Amino acid sequence: MLPWSAEFAGRLEEDVIVSELLQGNPLGDPHERPLWVYLPPGYQEDPDRRYPVVYVIQGYTGHLTMWRNRIPFRQPFPELADAVFARAEAPPAVVVYVDAWTAYGGSQFVDSAGTGRYHSYLCDEVVPWVDGRYRTLAEPAHRAIMGKSSGGFGAMITPMLRPDLFGALATHAGDTLYEHSYVPSFAKATRFLRDYDADIWRWWDEFRSRVAFTKEADAALLEVLGVAACFSAHEDGSVELPFDPRTGVVRDDVWERWLAWDPVRMVPRYAGALRSLRAIWIDAGTKDEYCLDLGAEAFRAALREIGVSDEVIRFELFEAGHGAIEYRYPLSLAWLCHRIAA
Amino acid sequence: MLPWSAEFAGRLEEDVIVSELLQGNPLGDPHERPLWVYLPPGYQEDPDRRYPVVYVIQGYTGHLTMWRNRIPFRQPFPELADAVFARAEAPPAVVVYVDAWTAYGGSQFVDSAGTGRYHSYLCDEVVPWVDGRYRTLAEPAHRAIMGKSSGGFGAMITPMLRPDLFGALATHAGDTLYEHSYVPSFAKATRFLRDYDADIWRWWDEFRSRVAFTKEADAALLEVLGVAACFSAHEDGSVELPFDPRTGVVRDDVWERWLAWDPVRMVPRYAGALRSLRAIWIDAGTKDEYCLDLGAEAFRAALREIGVSDEVIRFELFEAGHGAIEYRYPLSLAWLCHRIAA
Amino acid sequence: MLPWSAEFAGRLEEDVIVSELLQGNPLGDPHERPLWVYLPPGYQEDPDRRYPVVYVIQGYTGHLTMWRNRIPFRQPFPELADAVFARAEAPPAVVVYVDAWTAYGGSQFVDSAGTGRYHSYLCDEVVPWVDGRYRTLAEPAHRAIMGKSSGGFGAMITPMLRPDLFGALATHAGDTLYEHSYVPSFAKATRFLRDYDADIWRWWDEFRSRVAFTKEADAALLEVLGVAACFSAHEDGSVELPFDPRTGVVRDDVWERWLAWDPVRMVPRYAGALRSLRAIWIDAGTKDEYCLDLGAEAFRAALREIGVSDEVIRFELFEAGHGAIEYRYPLSLAWLCHRIAA
Amino acid sequence: MLPWSAEFAGRLEEDVIVSELLQGNPLGDPHERPLWVYLPPGYQEDPDRRYPVVYVIQGYTGHLTMWRNRIPFRQPFPELADAVFARAEAPPAVVVYVDAWTAYGGSQFVDSAGTGRYHSYLCDEVVPWVDGRYRTLAEPAHRAIMGKSSGGFGAMITPMLRPDLFGALATHAGDTLYEHSYVPSFAKATRFLRDYDADIWRWWDEFRSRVAFTKEADAALLEVLGVAACFSAHEDGSVELPFDPRTGVVRDDVWERWLAWDPVRMVPRYAGALRSLRAIWIDAGTKDEYCLDLGAEAFRAALREIGVSDEVIRFELFEAGHGAIEYRYPLSLAWLCHRIAA
Repeated sequence: MLPWSAEFAGRLEEDVIVSELLQGNPLGDPHERPLWVYLPPGYQEDPDRRYPVVYVIQGYTGHLTMWRNRIPFRQPFPELADAVFARAEAPPAVVVYVDAWTAYGGSQFVDSAGTGRYHSYLCDEVVPWVDGRYRTLAEPAHRAIMGKSSGGFGAMITPMLRPDLFGALATHAGDTLYEHSYVPSFAKATRFLRDYDADIWRWWDEFRSRVAFTKEADAALLEVLGVAACFSAHEDGSVELPFDPRTGVVRDDVWERWLAWDPVRMVPRYAGALRSLRAIWIDAGTKDEYCLDLGAEAFRAALREIGVSDEVIRFELFEAGHGAIEYRYPLSLAWLCHRIAA
Repeated sequence: MLPWSAEFAGRLEEDVIVSELLQGNPLGDPHERPLWVYLPPGYQEDPDRRYPVVYVIQGYTGHLTMWRNRIPFRQPFPELADAVFARAEAPPAVVVYVDAWTAYGGSQFVDSAGTGRYHSYLCDEVVPWVDGRYRTLAEPAHRAIMGKSSGGFGAMITPMLRPDLFGALATHAGDTLYEHSYVPSFAKATRFLRDYDADIWRWWDEFRSRVAFTKEADAALLEVLGVAACFSAHEDGSVELPFDPRTGVVRDDVWERWLAWDPVRMVPRYAGALRSLRAIWIDAGTKDEYCLDLGAEAFRAALREIGVSDEVIRFELFEAGHGAIEYRYPLSLAWLCHRIAA
Repeated sequence: MLPWSAEFAGRLEEDVIVSELLQGNPLGDPHERPLWVYLPPGYQEDPDRRYPVVYVIQGYTGHLTMWRNRIPFRQPFPELADAVFARAEAPPAVVVYVDAWTAYGGSQFVDSAGTGRYHSYLCDEVVPWVDGRYRTLAEPAHRAIMGKSSGGFGAMITPMLRPDLFGALATHAGDTLYEHSYVPSFAKATRFLRDYDADIWRWWDEFRSRVAFTKEADAALLEVLGVAACFSAHEDGSVELPFDPRTGVVRDDVWERWLAWDPVRMVPRYAGALRSLRAIWIDAGTKDEYCLDLGAEAFRAALREIGVSDEVIRFELFEAGHGAIEYRYPLSLAWLCHRIAA
Repeated sequence: MLPWSAEFAGRLEEDVIVSELLQGNPLGDPHERPLWVYLPPGYQEDPDRRYPVVYVIQGYTGHLTMWRNRIPFRQPFPELADAVFARAEAPPAVVVYVDAWTAYGGSQFVDSAGTGRYHSYLCDEVVPWVDGRYRTLAEPAHRAIMGKSSGGFGAMITPMLRPDLFGALATHAGDTLYEHSYVPSFAKATRFLRDYDADIWRWWDEFRSRVAFTKEADAALLEVLGVAACFSAHEDGSVELPFDPRTGVVRDDVWERWLAWDPVRMVPRYAGALRSLRAIWIDAGTKDEYCLDLGAEAFRAALREIGVSDEVIRFELFEAGHGAIEYRYPLSLAWLCHRIAA
């Protein structure tokens, strides 16, 4: 393997999608969005064939270009994904890389007055756009969504909300079980806010005026601000934190709004949608810093509780933390492709 | 300072109290308990004088003899306390060191079917025993209670429950704000229980059969088991964990029982008792591993909310973690003695 | 700032250089190497003007393409460098991004029988190649070299060895003071090698057969193997570790070979070369995990000792660790350009 | 097991020894020293029997009274040692607990112009004092020395220096292999000294004026100062650090003085003494924060190198860090007693 780059067996098309739904979004983020569509080997040669589609979404702070980031002695996921098809480890599929970045670093792939309508953008704009331009099998049985971390969250909730679109999912260390994944950040954030008179906007102004992530506070404060913008914004777009920024006391009413977005808690409400899925991949590292291995266990347990068959589920914990686990994605991609192939 | 020991200016009497309330306790722990009563300098010389009393209770896993443990270049608290009076930094007081150890390492100073009646033992046996044998000012205005960690918790709740006995308190890094102090241990415990088929009793049996604290799991599992025995035991003494040991999901009903013992949440219910107190010392280290600095802030905020005057409160955060902060206790001891002196 | 990419004010040319010196290198690494040459704004418009040149080299495990990696809310260095010139914060210069990656992750920019002739490649091939193709000021007074970590090391030693080529340098957290930067890795490596019967080649074979950096051992073992290949290879290319892999005992003779490459120790031997430099930038983060802040202090002290004037030196410690400090590079780049401009 | 205390089957005599050699020691430490002599069960009943003796020495910052410190759910070593004999797990022996504390926290059990003549005090005063007052087998074959950390160091070097006195030793995580156990502290210390203008005496004055160990700097600075006082004091008692306190650069000449006290390096010089020993217990935890597991491996390798038979050596690594390993001592005590019994 050469370290610098790799040739693709398939073809990666770099498009731009002009979103109407994101126009005038509350953060002033671009409504023209990059979109990559990967066409598997053989796509050009066989002009009548239609393909299943896997939508790939990113973790918090991720944006599309970061798929090119190279870790030494490893390959970026789009290259690994290409290799899956080049080696015929899975039936060919179209792979769509979606961008849902915001000024706060992410959108959680939900519609929020605090950030924008990213859920609708994905479901009502990106999906039809892809189906309109590429030879896809445009049915939920042949459409999957996968992601890691916040992308894993998006992969869990999107099919719950839109079983008419998505029939399969893969969540790698997806956000869930918020008492363990989010609450510890509230404590950290409260401490960090001591330097900002308990006012997260003072931090935010400072954060934007200097090099990002040069203060220990940055990661936790960005996370709570960004996720609050997704889960607990008011109608007018203002953001409410789920804890008292002076004491760290969890605010029950706001917390309820967050828990309403906790996949583990959502499962019973969306039981029908979930039981309709053909394939659910769940994994996480046993040392995940956000305890998303526990979240994975809890999500599986909730699925079993509502009667989702173990046949549909692929569950695995592996020894790793939260970061640098992109080597897991080709495994779920291949597995999904087998399940959603015609 | 000689490192090995120190002479007392006052006098430390080592007693044993035979408790009726602890007889037949569920863990089979001794009902004969060591009790130390410290008499300040001058106590013998002035046979008519009566003294205020400060009760000192310990943190989790602490038992009475540990007050003798020596940290290099420091002195044990009983020596520091003696020095407070020897140097006349505070009005003389009797200081009572109470033991409430159990087989799980502590009692949280509550009555529980899981451990025993340690709250009643303290209030209805130890206090009268001391008042009966020593020249005390036997009124709440002259009786204080102080402690650290679980002892700080005990110091917060005991005057809430028994304002007829205690009129002042000092909590050093006292347990409270359980979403930040306890919940992270549930996640750790769930992971550790993977090696015990999610059965904490399998761990407990193993723990008792080998050298304690030689496994990383020991501290977190002892904590959740021990505190559950205090807060969420059934009538028959059996213990219920506040989380699903396979997934870490917090069990709402059991969690409610824990929160009913969270001092921050207890404040409104015991507003009258708390408003009757003459002195409330609250401190914690800014790097407390259990986030009890946030707990301290939250406890103060709750007190203010119910109208406790800032005049009554002494609040301080200092740069330290949770351990090795015994140098803080003489500060609160002296402050309390000034407040509860005749 | 859009997160996905940025337009350049200048122009980045992506070349390939065919090295003769790297042909048949011991690791079988490519002798055709990518090389990026950045031309500042105005370069095209002013066809007679000649420019100073700054060579930029990378840290261990870095290869050329990684300059494109994006950190959220930040920009890659080549974009930051472009901005320096676009905003006219420094006199225009050509910036050359050199690749010296090897199968072990790096070359330390030295000639070694264990890896290849990367020092000579840089000095005798890359520099003439650039001078032959671009309008440079081809004299040491107008040629600088800069880098971070191993790249900082390369930036320190290359002008020592070749003052006829380089007249200025910038080292960001450059490897030096090996008792603190390398020796701790020997201890870690010895422990990790317990799983490999103290045979680093068994680890290496395994490392290459699986996903890299999925074991805790990987980083330390790669580092000691790779640096040993640079500093303590035998004539036949075989590599000797500087410590006994069963006990961690430092091997004095091999260690001497390493110390012969410690910039702090090299300073007296290369006093003349160092005194000839026009500009020496030295910085590091105060929490550098390799203690390279101490190394920076020691390197400056050694320079002062041999009589390098403080006027020539720019020294700064800043609050950071070893990673993610690319925001420092534009500072040294601008400073160097002022010093090496005509 | 009751948590508070335990009855001894044997008898612990608390003596005081008046040392002539420690009179006028450079730090003004007491020359009257506590000394505990443990007499095994049966000692009184059998007035003609003579017993082997095991001398027990402590780790850095330890002083005699700390043997009473209680860890929850565990027992102090003197109680564990008593149990060894009470359960007849080893032939009875006299166990002598020696105090060699200094104002810097320890003496390393060497004679030093910086601290005092603690080696001679142990060998020429304590040993004869014990032999003169108790029924001992007063020969090296029946005299052992054991300790942990700095006490393990003392246990390694004392028999090297005085094989006429000691015929057996046990080192638990004993200080050795200084490149890994001490050098990392030099780096930490250098950083911490930035707040003290690189003057360790400024730190020392401050340290003594406030509560000890409330600053992160304290542990590392105390260690380097204290050990330098033992290993690299001048004749006049002044202390030289083994590194430049501004840069962390190791000072070769002072470092040589330290290495002259590194047991791993001392082995060849004291080969004869070491080959005369009857029993050598070496252990350490695999996660020892001072890498003394590597030190243990290196010490064993050095012993093998000079021809010490494996029959004489008991070697074990166990999963633990450096602290709280007192449960290991009864194992070596019993083993030693078997080896040095008549």
